[in-house]
Amino acid sequence: MAFAAVQCELMKRSLQEVAEAVGARLHGDGKAQVSGVASIVTASAEDLVFVEDEKFLASALGSRAGAVIAGGFAAAAASGKPMLISEHPKLAFARAARLFRERRGEEKVGGHAPCDSDARGAGAAREKVHGTAVVAASARVASGAVVGERAVIGEQAEIGEDTQIGAGCVIGMGVKIGAECEIYPNVTIYAGSTLGERVIVHAGAVLGSDGFGYVRDRTTGHCEKFPQVGRLVIEDDVEIGANTAIDRGALEETRIGRGAKIDNLVHIGHNCRIGENVVIAAQTGLSGGVVIENNVVLGGQVGIGEHARIEEGVMLGGQGGVLPNKVLRGKGVAFWGTPAQPVREYLKQLAVLARLGKKK
Amino acid sequence: MAFAAVQCELMKRSLQEVAEAVGARLHGDGKAQVSGVASIVTASAEDLVFVEDEKFLASALGSRAGAVIAGGFAAAAASGKPMLISEHPKLAFARAARLFRERRGEEKVGGHAPCDSDARGAGAAREKVHGTAVVAASARVASGAVVGERAVIGEQAEIGEDTQIGAGCVIGMGVKIGAECEIYPNVTIYAGSTLGERVIVHAGAVLGSDGFGYVRDRTTGHCEKFPQVGRLVIEDDVEIGANTAIDRGALEETRIGRGAKIDNLVHIGHNCRIGENVVIAAQTGLSGGVVIENNVVLGGQVGIGEHARIEEGVMLGGQGGVLPNKVLRGKGVAFWGTPAQPVREYLKQLAVLARLGKKK
Amino acid sequence: MAFAAVQCELMKRSLQEVAEAVGARLHGDGKAQVSGVASIVTASAEDLVFVEDEKFLASALGSRAGAVIAGGFAAAAASGKPMLISEHPKLAFARAARLFRERRGEEKVGGHAPCDSDARGAGAAREKVHGTAVVAASARVASGAVVGERAVIGEQAEIGEDTQIGAGCVIGMGVKIGAECEIYPNVTIYAGSTLGERVIVHAGAVLGSDGFGYVRDRTTGHCEKFPQVGRLVIEDDVEIGANTAIDRGALEETRIGRGAKIDNLVHIGHNCRIGENVVIAAQTGLSGGVVIENNVVLGGQVGIGEHARIEEGVMLGGQGGVLPNKVLRGKGVAFWGTPAQPVREYLKQLAVLARLGKKK
Repeated sequence: MAFAAVQCELMKRSLQEVAEAVGARLHGDGKAQVSGVASIVTASAEDLVFVEDEKFLASALGSRAGAVIAGGFAAAAASGKPMLISEHPKLAFARAARLFRERRGEEKVGGHAPCDSDARGAGAAREKVHGTAVVAASARVASGAVVGERAVIGEQAEIGEDTQIGAGCVIGMGVKIGAECEIYPNVTIYAGSTLGERVIVHAGAVLGSDGFGYVRDRTTGHCEKFPQVGRLVIEDDVEIGANTAIDRGALEETRIGRGAKIDNLVHIGHNCRIGENVVIAAQTGLSGGVVIENNVVLGGQVGIGEHARIEEGVMLGGQGGVLPNKVLRGKGVAFWGTPAQPVREYLKQLAVLARLGKKK
Repeated sequence: MAFAAVQCELMKRSLQEVAEAVGARLHGDGKAQVSGVASIVTASAEDLVFVEDEKFLASALGSRAGAVIAGGFAAAAASGKPMLISEHPKLAFARAARLFRERRGEEKVGGHAPCDSDARGAGAAREKVHGTAVVAASARVASGAVVGERAVIGEQAEIGEDTQIGAGCVIGMGVKIGAECEIYPNVTIYAGSTLGERVIVHAGAVLGSDGFGYVRDRTTGHCEKFPQVGRLVIEDDVEIGANTAIDRGALEETRIGRGAKIDNLVHIGHNCRIGENVVIAAQTGLSGGVVIENNVVLGGQVGIGEHARIEEGVMLGGQGGVLPNKVLRGKGVAFWGTPAQPVREYLKQLAVLARLGKKK
Repeated sequence: MAFAAVQCELMKRSLQEVAEAVGARLHGDGKAQVSGVASIVTASAEDLVFVEDEKFLASALGSRAGAVIAGGFAAAAASGKPMLISEHPKLAFARAARLFRERRGEEKVGGHAPCDSDARGAGAAREKVHGTAVVAASARVASGAVVGERAVIGEQAEIGEDTQIGAGCVIGMGVKIGAECEIYPNVTIYAGSTLGERVIVHAGAVLGSDGFGYVRDRTTGHCEKFPQVGRLVIEDDVEIGANTAIDRGALEETRIGRGAKIDNLVHIGHNCRIGENVVIAAQTGLSGGVVIENNVVLGGQVGIGEHARIEEGVMLGGQGGVLPNKVLRGKGVAFWGTPAQPVREYLKQLAVLARLGKKK
């Protein structure tokens, strides 16, 4: 990789292997070897690049890349450079990248040089539990798991196989983390939270914090804290961005569904239920008790009021807002604005307003 | 509690004790004992539940809960289950939850098992200052205070009685923290900041950071940093959410009034003055020099411009925006939109716009 | 300083020295000495204050301040108090503040008392690399650099001269940090990121995290992670606020230009390019691939869609939104609203809407 932080021997894969792993059709020399992914500009001879749009094919073929992943449009191209033909070249490229990551993962477990672009600090890769980590006596750290410098693992916590806990993380009492998770540095997980397998949590995220619930005493005006004693459950294959905060349930649970992807600086309040494969862009905030059904896509800086429900497959544009208790419905329907409306209607309103503004 | 992270012996309270502590009228066996709070769904026989709406009373009475806190409407109900009758059942429930928390607090100070749902790591509860913490020679840690794993306490800092400093916190030079505060893990408090008593700060919050002030040099276009040498004062009974950032004053102070409750990922700029019992929901941002008077409620993702003033008792809906130097006034008046307007006027405008959009 | 966290002997400067350093004209006793900056209210006899508006001149001259920085309007004022006359008094004041900071910096390097209002923990100033820090064998820490308590420095990382790494920071493998930077506590920098000289990073910030990129598998609905293997480059004189998150490039780089100032809780996505002297207020979010040209000013809570471009010198008001791929153009032109429009047009639309709302 052009920007590899540190020089190190990357494991190579033959194009034949890559083609099989990603489900692409190979044109050219299957024995040629590649070890990473790159852009057309930054590629070296050991990198794969990809082209989705035919107009970039010539640049890709003219680049230094070792091979090009491209759509069916490229099948007839005359090229000295090997090609992997796929119906969905970007997906094939992403899968190839995962293949290289996995190979590096194997190395790390085996004690080789930690050729991975993360910030866990190098020491972590050498010893399973770094000498400066504080692991409670009753905690269980599975084989292959790595606990970084100065991480703290509370009593009765469980860390799954091959999971990596970054430097400075604080894992509360009784937290269960599944296998093959990557927890980046300085993450805090409150007691009793549960994470599935292959969950990625970026630096500074806070999981399982108290929700924001108070009862105003009418006599004094003071706010009495409502109990926040539920828990947080994060299912498999979820990714959570840097400095995101997800609250535990008040009395029951907050749940993040399998495969959900959550960006940086997102807020998820107590008792929310996020469905499977939901995508939530940066700085979006969900109030308490919000339900987001499967496959919903929320843009950045979206705000959703208490107990609102966004039904399956809805898309809501950036900065959109949903009032408390409202329901947005329609698979594949795009909404926008505050209060959120179907985007076609909202655009009409904006057009009318622009015209009126010009009149006077 | 249904979701207690870790099995442990909770101290029990008789219903008689609870009724007296929360100011409710007892119906049924006052000697029955409870040890926690729960929802109707998750309750066990040792849990209290509450009902505000008569239509849920039957479910509550049919649940496994040991007792039900309910409004006057329940006084006449025939029930084998003990009831605590209160004019404000949710408040009574919240107070009962505090009662159980306090009892657990006593245990912890006495060195018993740390049956508390936080993420401080279990070690912290066993020894007052964990062996991996770094406490400066001139710092003072009061009796009963607990300093978690790897926390750093700077020179001349003072930690009050029974206050808990979470693992990984960095408490700057000269910081004063009052009694019975709970500082969750990985919080950073800049030098010279002051916190009152019973302040709760959730993980990842940053208190007392430099404000955002620059003077543009007209000749070069460069931004010269304006000095940020004031301080931050947080009064008693404030709660601050995860990953929230509150800046110190530039030359004078930023002040957070007694009883204010601030959610996750909130930004409070330099020189702001937040009144008593103010409530600020997640991701709201206050520019420099904003004044929020007592009992104001700000929804999520609200943005307020420099030197604006929100007067006593105003409510401002989610995503609302206030221009610099503006004043919002009206006890109990709800505002919404950007620029914020009384909500009734704003809704009329939205209705007109929707109608015009449909016409064309 | 009125609010100095800790009593300590500050180095004094004569007014003559200050006047020369900040480019102001001295009226009065040039041998008088000052040691800090303050507001008119908080000033002591050793503080400088400043006045930009003639109407505050009398208060400044009547304050306890040792000297007053003021505009040309003050040149004729009869005053027993020394004055520094400058065409841009606020800039002169900011420069004077820097002068005092630098002097304190020198002391710190020399091993004197750490009279600085930060939260690095006092120990850091006494020894160059604190005994509890974990520095990898192949990392290089330049002379004069200070590494705080429990900080982790990864393999092959480089820390420049006189740079300060706060307590609890995690600096990834191969990270390069230039000279005279200040990295506050609990910051995480992912592997391979590069910071220039005199960069300030406030507590809790995350630099170089993975961008938010997935490829949806149409068959299964699952999101395959797009590789995030590029890097993050931060040029000289940048300041980054508390709990801000900046992602690395996906395949290429994210770049923050020289002199850019970024407030708290800002999100900057992968592949963004931020120009020189750009100012970005709190909680603003930039999607992937956004270009912000030189001298742009973005208000708070602004949201910008993928691949949009904000051209040189544009100003965009708080909560403004820009759609993906859009371009905003016009040196010194102010935009506002979502979608962002020239502010004059947008205000007309708001006025029309308010009128229509009243009619009906």
